[in-house]
Amino acid sequence: MAHIELGAGLPGIRGPMVFSPETTKPLCDLVQALLTGPHTLTPAEREMIATYVSSENDCFYCQTCHGSTAAQHLGGSEADYALITQIKQNYEATPISAKMKALLAIAGKVQKGGKHVTTEDVARARQQGVTDKEIHDTVLIAAAFCMFNRYVDGLATWQPKDPEIYREIGKMTAQLGYVNRDYKKPLESVMALQNKS
Amino acid sequence: MAHIELGAGLPGIRGPMVFSPETTKPLCDLVQALLTGPHTLTPAEREMIATYVSSENDCFYCQTCHGSTAAQHLGGSEADYALITQIKQNYEATPISAKMKALLAIAGKVQKGGKHVTTEDVARARQQGVTDKEIHDTVLIAAAFCMFNRYVDGLATWQPKDPEIYREIGKMTAQLGYVNRDYKKPLESVMALQNKS
Repeated sequence: MAHIELGAGLPGIRGPMVFSPETTKPLCDLVQALLTGPHTLTPAEREMIATYVSSENDCFYCQTCHGSTAAQHLGGSEADYALITQIKQNYEATPISAKMKALLAIAGKVQKGGKHVTTEDVARARQQGVTDKEIHDTVLIAAAFCMFNRYVDGLATWQPKDPEIYREIGKMTAQLGYVNRDYKKPLESVMALQNKS
Repeated sequence: MAHIELGAGLPGIRGPMVFSPETTKPLCDLVQALLTGPHTLTPAEREMIATYVSSENDCFYCQTCHGSTAAQHLGGSEADYALITQIKQNYEATPISAKMKALLAIAGKVQKGGKHVTTEDVARARQQGVTDKEIHDTVLIAAAFCMFNRYVDGLATWQPKDPEIYREIGKMTAQLGYVNRDYKKPLESVMALQNKS
């Protein structure tokens, strides 16, 4: 049970988002600016950073939602979902670019704490042609998910295990982004689950 | 030296804020919604939560800015600054309310990771009459400063040690809040420091 009274059937961050609209607006604007729109890193790559940090923070809801969104941006095949799982387990051994590996290394240091990022971490990224903006955004995406993960788990929100729910969320998010969405609206996959039980 | 090229003479978060206006807007809106305006917790109390979490994350810039803002909200005396120092060292032993101690305990758990918050932590707060909104906002303030601290330290921003700079920042923030401010404008205390050296 969540630590505060949240709307029934709203998984993960959706409960607190509906509870507190005045903070939800800036949170959505932030994640929209970081993860969507034109950028030298693809939406899939930025979602991978969010997914990896959420996995390191052991936040089931965030790592599964953003992992699904990343997979959907890649095409949504089972191979795409498998790649995301591999990235969480050991990104150095996956078929992603050396640039993305260097950025995930920085993100992993930010997850541990800002001071863990070293000049060597940054030099490794520079060798792959990483720009100031890419370093800035990687640090802020990683830092932001240290917030979102704590928000979701610190309130002990409901986090269903059914993979279908996260497939639906990933599809919607890859298509619609994060702003101007009705987070109060029940998910079809959640309703189907509730009708079954 | 910072990991990316940031404006000279801009301490702490001000460098990345000026670097990335598209993310600065939602970050300022978020902190404005959380730390300012009418609330059952005073601005000083909410700044104390931000200060304590930033201290636990060992972020010198954030703990000193928000500690100064909290002290200024209390009146700005040396005793007010001393209270903030004591809260960072051992809040249980300070003359703050039992309610604030219970909220700082929750914030400290969020700093370690969302799953560290227990039903016992929440029950302790409930015994002091804490509301759902106060728990929500405490969790989100603590989570947000886990982001801000990592943003500031993860980019290795310039964090001057001169206490006068933080007194000036605290005074301005207590008076003006966080939005619609010109973060590019050099601080008088920074210019005085540069003229001296």
